[in-house]
Amino acid sequence: MVNASTYPVVALMTDFGTGEADIGVMKGVIAGITPDVQIVDLTHDIPPQRVASGAWVLGASYRYFPANTVFVCVVDPGVGSSRGAIALYAGEWFFVGPDNGLFSYILAEQQAHAAVLLSNPAYHLRHVSATFHGRDIFSPVGAHLAREGSAIMGDLGTAIDPTNLKRLATGQPAWHDSTIDAHIIHVDNFGNLITSIPLTMLPDLFDLPQVRASFPVQAKTIDERRRFFADGAEDGRPFIYGDSSGYIAIAVRNGNAAQTVGAAYGDAITFVISSK
Amino acid sequence: MVNASTYPVVALMTDFGTGEADIGVMKGVIAGITPDVQIVDLTHDIPPQRVASGAWVLGASYRYFPANTVFVCVVDPGVGSSRGAIALYAGEWFFVGPDNGLFSYILAEQQAHAAVLLSNPAYHLRHVSATFHGRDIFSPVGAHLAREGSAIMGDLGTAIDPTNLKRLATGQPAWHDSTIDAHIIHVDNFGNLITSIPLTMLPDLFDLPQVRASFPVQAKTIDERRRFFADGAEDGRPFIYGDSSGYIAIAVRNGNAAQTVGAAYGDAITFVISSK
Amino acid sequence: MVNASTYPVVALMTDFGTGEADIGVMKGVIAGITPDVQIVDLTHDIPPQRVASGAWVLGASYRYFPANTVFVCVVDPGVGSSRGAIALYAGEWFFVGPDNGLFSYILAEQQAHAAVLLSNPAYHLRHVSATFHGRDIFSPVGAHLAREGSAIMGDLGTAIDPTNLKRLATGQPAWHDSTIDAHIIHVDNFGNLITSIPLTMLPDLFDLPQVRASFPVQAKTIDERRRFFADGAEDGRPFIYGDSSGYIAIAVRNGNAAQTVGAAYGDAITFVISSK
Repeated sequence: MVNASTYPVVALMTDFGTGEADIGVMKGVIAGITPDVQIVDLTHDIPPQRVASGAWVLGASYRYFPANTVFVCVVDPGVGSSRGAIALYAGEWFFVGPDNGLFSYILAEQQAHAAVLLSNPAYHLRHVSATFHGRDIFSPVGAHLAREGSAIMGDLGTAIDPTNLKRLATGQPAWHDSTIDAHIIHVDNFGNLITSIPLTMLPDLFDLPQVRASFPVQAKTIDERRRFFADGAEDGRPFIYGDSSGYIAIAVRNGNAAQTVGAAYGDAITFVISSK
Repeated sequence: MVNASTYPVVALMTDFGTGEADIGVMKGVIAGITPDVQIVDLTHDIPPQRVASGAWVLGASYRYFPANTVFVCVVDPGVGSSRGAIALYAGEWFFVGPDNGLFSYILAEQQAHAAVLLSNPAYHLRHVSATFHGRDIFSPVGAHLAREGSAIMGDLGTAIDPTNLKRLATGQPAWHDSTIDAHIIHVDNFGNLITSIPLTMLPDLFDLPQVRASFPVQAKTIDERRRFFADGAEDGRPFIYGDSSGYIAIAVRNGNAAQTVGAAYGDAITFVISSK
Repeated sequence: MVNASTYPVVALMTDFGTGEADIGVMKGVIAGITPDVQIVDLTHDIPPQRVASGAWVLGASYRYFPANTVFVCVVDPGVGSSRGAIALYAGEWFFVGPDNGLFSYILAEQQAHAAVLLSNPAYHLRHVSATFHGRDIFSPVGAHLAREGSAIMGDLGTAIDPTNLKRLATGQPAWHDSTIDAHIIHVDNFGNLITSIPLTMLPDLFDLPQVRASFPVQAKTIDERRRFFADGAEDGRPFIYGDSSGYIAIAVRNGNAAQTVGAAYGDAITFVISSK
């Protein structure tokens, strides 16, 4: 009864916040093109113009969406300038937005089947403003992709080599003997500090005799580990845990780890592991 | 054309706020299982970990949703600990979430047909994290219930007696002669103070000669009544009104009653009624 | 496969904020009546009770929605008083809400086919509260309109002459030689100051030798123009640009123009144009 072409999903990620009507207008544009679409707000609270943060949030989220979901992503400090507007088909998903590194984790993790510069105005709104490509270009392109899928990729504009798309550094940190030098790749709205170390790199996190995380600049060291937030009663002290995003992170129960530690996006963190 | 099994509704209630991508990811999981679902955000601004507040908001809302709506509710300070994860079929609706009292008003008001501990991993995501059961357990279970209804209740896990589910006190206050001793069961985001007295307990609120509400601790007394907010021009003075949730409440026009009165969740309030 | 009567759109605009469950409850009511509806949040952050602001946001947004979209609009300081509750069919869209000027831009820009006072309780919830007509009247009426369209307009209540609906002043400013006397019709959440001058009134904004905007009360003059936000590196200085809403506006890059200029909603602004 439900086949692949009905109820396609368009997921929206922006740094617009939710105060204005802009996101509502984008949804109006999308519903006008693809009436049976399922529109999902991934989040609209990416810190303004922080492309690296948007890239990470998208990278931690896309796998939970069904095949053929179209992600329309607008964290776009260069809107109106010469940065490219692109669509990318990678793994089982489509991604539409500016070519500014927002899709770095996708490109690092998934096979890129095709990419295209959105140069065909037939898929844009008739009047394209200088400042709101989310409404005028990305939303209509995303809605068409949701309805028609990969068959129209070639029509959207000029094909480009996915290897030429802009990428931010996403490389996972390396082991040096019993040490991992990493950094903070995301600070969530609760102040949890997400490190660049995937849980798969340290699958026995909770079985190791000792794990010590150090912030060299802040001269802070954390050696407590917790499986979940309700584990252990003491508040106020930072602890190491496995974040649900799939990365090792630092939190304070009923508190804000970023404030407690004095750490921010990009800061260095070193893990020293004792296996005996 | 539209039958009971198409366009099922899943309503989400959490204390996550809307800043993170977590709610978006839950919707991705749900849409992947039940593509024609109607996903509704009930609210994500339950005060963090305040189970009693979540229970009240759900209790004041569920009757407005169509039969077979599945409520996925995550106010879950005990996530990862031994608290049960449950599905409940009561009245005409389904409820999925932690067994921590969140469904107290439902259990008090509706007939519970069945309850089940969500012990069957076939209905969970393949990898269940320690900290995000909203994504890994409650969302996929809710999506399956939305699609297949009560027929799968038994498959979701071990049946439990609904009378054994955790309940918070929801009992409505009692009359003592012309007095009702009640308390504040909810403070909304405008600072309105919702009392535990249902409007049905005092249906002639606006016809009685005098109604006096007293906060014994704050030593404040309120005897003004208003049928609606635009009724009466004076700002700043608290008044008694019938809240749209179905409970008697205290508000300040263009102001914040909780601040004006100095009252908070749980505080005692006494109503003295003069019927002549 | 998709015809005009499936997947109708209901767009919601309110001043409720997103903290309470009220909007979720309205969606529950709508989905119960019209299960295949596409519900879109236009915005819920209209400044509380600011009807003029709601009118402007709606006016800048509705054209982006598909034909037959029903806009349910609740910025309603007079709820419970004698203000009328109406449905309006104008252009290709339907509008439901209080008769308080919220539809002023629609009435100025579109042909009004029909208007009706919502006096037929058969289209309301059984129990209508004094304070929440959004849930009890506007949502069920909007859902019925979304499903059945203009055919039921006459059933909703007493027909009224659209020319008698309440209107706020929306007239566009006039030229006086090389001068336009205008005012600020909206301040968005970024502090951008939207003027009452449509871009169509000054289509050669960026080709004119000089354009000077003056705030007479604040004694501030702005003569810098920018095509988009990334154009020009300097922060802190206000500039003139064409807002994506279709109006000329004043912004500060990475700043707040309303604070920088000291201007607010309703303030006068004068443009002096030198064409040589």
